[in-house]
Amino acid sequence: MATKKMILDLDTGVDDALAIAYSLAAPDVDLIGIVSSYGNCLVEQAGENSLKLLELLGATDVPVFLGASHSSTTDHFDVMQVSKDIHGNNGIGEVDLPKAKRPIETQSAVDFLIESAHKYSKDLIFVPTGPMTNLDAALTKDPEIADLIGNVTFMGGALTVEGNVTPDAEANINQDAEAADRVMRSNLNITMVGLDVTLRTLLTKAETTVWRNLGTDAGKNYADITDFYIDAYYKLDIDKNGCALHDPLAVGVALDPSFVQTIDLNMQVLHDKDNYGRTVGDNARLNDPTTNVKIAVNVDKQRYLDTFMNYLTGLFVKH
Amino acid sequence: MATKKMILDLDTGVDDALAIAYSLAAPDVDLIGIVSSYGNCLVEQAGENSLKLLELLGATDVPVFLGASHSSTTDHFDVMQVSKDIHGNNGIGEVDLPKAKRPIETQSAVDFLIESAHKYSKDLIFVPTGPMTNLDAALTKDPEIADLIGNVTFMGGALTVEGNVTPDAEANINQDAEAADRVMRSNLNITMVGLDVTLRTLLTKAETTVWRNLGTDAGKNYADITDFYIDAYYKLDIDKNGCALHDPLAVGVALDPSFVQTIDLNMQVLHDKDNYGRTVGDNARLNDPTTNVKIAVNVDKQRYLDTFMNYLTGLFVKH
Repeated sequence: MATKKMILDLDTGVDDALAIAYSLAAPDVDLIGIVSSYGNCLVEQAGENSLKLLELLGATDVPVFLGASHSSTTDHFDVMQVSKDIHGNNGIGEVDLPKAKRPIETQSAVDFLIESAHKYSKDLIFVPTGPMTNLDAALTKDPEIADLIGNVTFMGGALTVEGNVTPDAEANINQDAEAADRVMRSNLNITMVGLDVTLRTLLTKAETTVWRNLGTDAGKNYADITDFYIDAYYKLDIDKNGCALHDPLAVGVALDPSFVQTIDLNMQVLHDKDNYGRTVGDNARLNDPTTNVKIAVNVDKQRYLDTFMNYLTGLFVKH
Repeated sequence: MATKKMILDLDTGVDDALAIAYSLAAPDVDLIGIVSSYGNCLVEQAGENSLKLLELLGATDVPVFLGASHSSTTDHFDVMQVSKDIHGNNGIGEVDLPKAKRPIETQSAVDFLIESAHKYSKDLIFVPTGPMTNLDAALTKDPEIADLIGNVTFMGGALTVEGNVTPDAEANINQDAEAADRVMRSNLNITMVGLDVTLRTLLTKAETTVWRNLGTDAGKNYADITDFYIDAYYKLDIDKNGCALHDPLAVGVALDPSFVQTIDLNMQVLHDKDNYGRTVGDNARLNDPTTNVKIAVNVDKQRYLDTFMNYLTGLFVKH
């Protein structure tokens, strides 16, 4: 079996930083690139953050590409105040990492994704943990990739629970519900890792203390970055018991689907004013003979957390 | 094992009529009473319809009780035009059945339910296929019944698909979302059979023709009643392929849970203006160690339809 190839699509972000570490630490997968999106921060910041984190983790061979700077329905993007409160003004918990030596690639995110889909086909796993704007643009430019890419596992949406921006909308989907709707209605083989499960996998300072005590740069910085996020969850009363492992859970599920229980459905994303960003089954396609989206609705919390800590601690001890 | 005792709570209704037939035909269960609700028609009409249908099916030993005439937040109820369009002005597809010989009971629906909960405890299955107003009132009058009743399997709600009154709300829940929310937050052991699955079990005129050709009163009348409903589904463009077996599926699942795939969740019913009637997981109780609601999210259509037809045809041939 060929080694799986993974591309992350990140608005880097604290939990995006954890997703990078998870994908580097996991065996049997090559992180072949990171494409960048607006979201938790501006797209340029997301790209810089990814490069810095890759260097911190010794992965200077991984290229980073710039994607969309705003949604498919706007011509401008400002970071929401709540994003700054949760992720820090710089996206990575106000932790000041050295500027990366490796530059951003000149190729666009969309072209890199299309090229990789043709090159790796079914061996390619694409993991967006921010808005769907880049993936939607790639599908528009080259519709054929819908039948090429092995799997898209995304962090976003909320099917069986309420959203975190509105009762309807989860933050990533809320950035560009129109793009997300087009992605859901494509032929892509999709797995949704939404708030249904990510709000159940919580990390606490007990775990970040383990990283800090490793005495490594990576351990200390990842502990500081993540503690900012845990503190924000506490202060904003999102969860007093820890921070949600949104983005790294998507990477985990992309590599080992048995972490979650899924249901099969043909999904849509509502984008009218009253229901903007709601991810829900499409009643018109409910009796279609096939479905293209698997939605995670329950998670083996303990096994995932054990794996997460084994991977990340094992990586941080070396850097 | 004691024979299961079932109470139906019906706003009788075409699919309620099918639910009565299913519960009478199913083996290993005693239908010990029907309580009546407003909804598809006025509560008095619902009670009369149930008595007429029971007599048509030779079940004159089953008592019928009157419940709430309006929701817990109103003092009056008018049947919605769309309900008349779907179920007919008389609730049973404009079919004129003889007035029943058996009268409505003098005991109230709430008192009958409370008495039965104490009498049969875990052997009692309660199946509401209309608004939750009666069950809510019984819980308020005697909270102890939440720990007594074996199981409540209700037809209503929509978790993974859109509602049929609004994108948020399914019709039964929409009648009294406040009552439904209190029921969901009780200690009752609940199974939700919502649009997620009932829109997948469709009946067509191929099946009603089988009933009509039996040459019995029951076969002819049930064919006529159901054809009105199938025609309404077609005319109103609800589904051109047949009518949904909403209420009888709830009875089926109550007796054989293996018809459906379920997920476990602590549920709530939103009742603010913008989200009125949405049945969704309660994020605040997402990480509680226990859950009290099982939600049906997929159904073995063919096995259910085969069972449904075996039961109902077997009953109609005798009456």
